Parts: sequence; structure tokens; C-alpha cells
Amino acid sequence: MPRYKLTIEYDGTPFIGWQIQAAGESVQGVLARAVTAFSGEEAAVHGAGRTDAGVHASGQVAHVELSRDWKPDTVRDAMNAHLRPHPVAVLSAERAADDFHARFSATGRRYLYRIIARRPDLVLERNRAWRVLRPLDAAAMAEGAARLVGRHDFTTFRAIGCQAASPVKTLDRLEVEQVPLEGPGMEIRVHAQARSFLHHQVRSMVGTLVKVGEGAWTPDDVSAALEAADRTRCGPMAPSAGLYLAEVTY
Amino acid sequence: MPRYKLTIEYDGTPFIGWQIQAAGESVQGVLARAVTAFSGEEAAVHGAGRTDAGVHASGQVAHVELSRDWKPDTVRDAMNAHLRPHPVAVLSAERAADDFHARFSATGRRYLYRIIARRPDLVLERNRAWRVLRPLDAAAMAEGAARLVGRHDFTTFRAIGCQAASPVKTLDRLEVEQVPLEGPGMEIRVHAQARSFLHHQVRSMVGTLVKVGEGAWTPDDVSAALEAADRTRCGPMAPSAGLYLAEVTY
Repeated sequence: MPRYKLTIEYDGTPFIGWQIQAAGESVQGVLARAVTAFSGEEAAVHGAGRTDAGVHASGQVAHVELSRDWKPDTVRDAMNAHLRPHPVAVLSAERAADDFHARFSATGRRYLYRIIARRPDLVLERNRAWRVLRPLDAAAMAEGAARLVGRHDFTTFRAIGCQAASPVKTLDRLEVEQVPLEGPGMEIRVHAQARSFLHHQVRSMVGTLVKVGEGAWTPDDVSAALEAADRTRCGPMAPSAGLYLAEVTY
Repeated sequence: MPRYKLTIEYDGTPFIGWQIQAAGESVQGVLARAVTAFSGEEAAVHGAGRTDAGVHASGQVAHVELSRDWKPDTVRDAMNAHLRPHPVAVLSAERAADDFHARFSATGRRYLYRIIARRPDLVLERNRAWRVLRPLDAAAMAEGAARLVGRHDFTTFRAIGCQAASPVKTLDRLEVEQVPLEGPGMEIRVHAQARSFLHHQVRSMVGTLVKVGEGAWTPDDVSAALEAADRTRCGPMAPSAGLYLAEVTY
């Protein structure tokens, strides 16, 4: 049966998250309905990562298996026609090998986290970034981030309910970038890359780095929190609206 | 009476435009209600430019006169507290001279127009840019734009109902910038600057430049349309959602 790799963008704001659940609208659910609407088939849509409620994607990847051999561009356009009322779009569709699995074949995930430091509420970037009230020290945050790169036990930065087999992960990249803004304030982007992440790991790391940016924590405090391997030593978790699943690599 | 200069950001999507009208919610209307809510005073909010329905601002300027002498930061924060349900924020408030007028004292306006060329509907940038289906030739657009810079009769690029005394304006800047995108497609930004613009001038010029970007028009066609001073020679007007009033200078 032909298998398709889909690259997907969505605004996570109105969704309970990626995954189909008993109650509420999920990204996976609207995608599955779009598949059925154009093809007449009931087919599961398997995603590379299960983003939480309010988390966005600019490059989520999923696969779906259909019995009929559609042209990939037809799959993309037909799904988009049915997705239209929802803030979800298929950016590209490609034929994939029969053993391709969006989740298990992935060799890397990249996330972006956006923080805007300014006093007024966000308007044009509402639900697109975390608004913090005071300016952040991006250099100190970068120093704190460097303490987390590498292979570590990330228990401190792991949700209580995380179902990963091991808390040990290799963080390949955690970079802090300061981006110029047109208006008042500053924007900080955190780029995180790894083969895989623990549940809430990026938001937990970002919340901790904001503590450093505010001057409340030092980079040494980040190292100490990591080494403690203790969830209660984590900074407050950053909100979902600033997080984007940006890329999945294979 | 103390006069305040307000710098304002808004998402134009839900509004009938800047200006108070008999029916529908306007940006000026929600600002005026926020002034009354915190100060108890009925005071008109005078804007530098009357943006149309769906047009955004990252740097609109307005002034308001109050009888009581509030700290400017209090004006900003108190207005924002009352604006919260609406996608409007006061970025800054300053004391201004008694003869300062947001519209008549302005010496320049800068607009940004965002175009995203890609096949799927916009999701994260929904209502924030004009989505066109095919890639655009940014270099050709820049060449077309250069034909419009300077002092000209802009009748071709002027709304039928425009109330300006004269169609002659001096366009100080019209630049076409190609911005890298994370996903598929391309983003083009057009930056327009002048002392003042005719009604629909920026959207009319952008619509014409997109014709050039698509290869349907040459830069010479832009010159010919300008010289004709004939509204029917204008390209199709670009939609409101891509336009931002970015800055007003004094």
C-alpha cells in the first residue's frame, strides 16, 4: 500500500494537542478526517512527535498509508482543501518507503521557542510567543544553555508523567539567539535539537533559562539543577504558546 | 490640558478599520472606550493614519488630551488593562506639546507589506500576509518599484473615493526585500515611505508589483501605468491583511 510522508504546519492554539483524545479537537483528528474526506479511506495519521495543547508546528512530520496510489501533490492539495477551516496545512506530501515511520524512523527533532520581553500584551504575536515583562540577558542565557548540551540524565527537565524508558538523552544543540524587533522590547529565540526529547523537556529548559536571563539564577545554578536529577529543582515551565516543532530529520 | 502621544499596535482583522463608524467595531472606538474606562473622561483619540478594515499597525501614532496630569506610563498600562480583550496595545505613551497633532504634525509614514508565495494556505501567518500561489521574481519587482519612487501624479494608484487635495505625492522609498522562510515558498516584503500617501496607494502599488513579480508585467509597464494617470491602468489591489502601518515620524 502506498505510504505518504506529510510535512505539516499548524497553529496549536485551538487544539487539545497533536494526539486524538476522547474529548476535544486534535490536530491528528482533523488530519485523519481530511484523509477520509478526500480518499474515502479510514487511515491512521502517525506523527513524529505528540505536541501538547497550544504548541505549534512549522515542520511536524506524519505518515499515512492509503490503498490507492495518489500523486503526492494531489494528496497535499486535497487534504488542504478539506483542512481549510482549521489552522492546519500540509506543506508537502511525498511517497515514502513501505517501512518509513514518521516517529520511529526519525533521527532528530528541532524545536524553536520564542520569548518576547516587553511590557504591553502581545497583539500581532498573540499566542505565538511567551511574553515576559522584563528584558533578558541573552548572553547569560546562552551560558546557561551550554551547561545542558550533551548526554545527561534530564530528570530535572522531565514531566512527572513522562513515559520515556530512560531520562538519559543527548541534547545536540541548545542555542539562544537575540532577534531584532520593530517595536519596543526584545525577542529571544531558543533553538533545541536532539534525537528525541523527554515530555516537557524543551519548555522546562526554557523556563529555567529565563530564570538565568532575569538574573535570578546563574549558569552554575543550571548545572546544579541538572546534576540534582530532581524535578523540583527545575525552573517554572515555559508556556506552550511559544513552542514550535520546527523540523524532523530522517 | 496634558496631551499624550500614544504608539499603538493592532491586529486589524476583527475591525472595520481605524476610524469610528456608525456600525462595527473600530480601533479608534476601542481606544476611546479604554481612555474613558481608566480616566472617566470622554476624549477623542486622533490617529496619524486611517487604516482600512483588516490593515494592521505595528507603529500607529495617536494623540489624546486629558484634563488630569497622569504619568505617561500609567496611561499606557491603564489603557492596556482595559484593551485586553481586543488585539490592540499601547506600546508607549509620552507627554507631547500642546500643539502636537498625530496627523498634522507627522512628517513621514512608513508601511510594510508582506507577501508569502506558497501553495498551501497560510496557517501561522493567517491574516498576516498575502498568500500568492507562485514564486515571485523579487529583482524584477525591485526594478518596477524603482520606477515609482520620487514625485509623481499617483492617480493610477489612488482609490476612486480618495479625498486628498492632490494626486501628486513624493514617494521617498519603495523597496522590495526577500526574506528567508523556514518552510516552503518565499516571503517578499515591500517597504514604502513618504510624507503621506493617497488612499489605497500602497496596496495598489503592491498589487501592480506582484504583476511584475509574476512576469505578467515588465518594469516598463509600471512606468507606463504611472504616466497614464488612469486608475483603470492599475494592477489588482493587494488585500488588506498584508499591510502594516509600521512607523510615523515627526
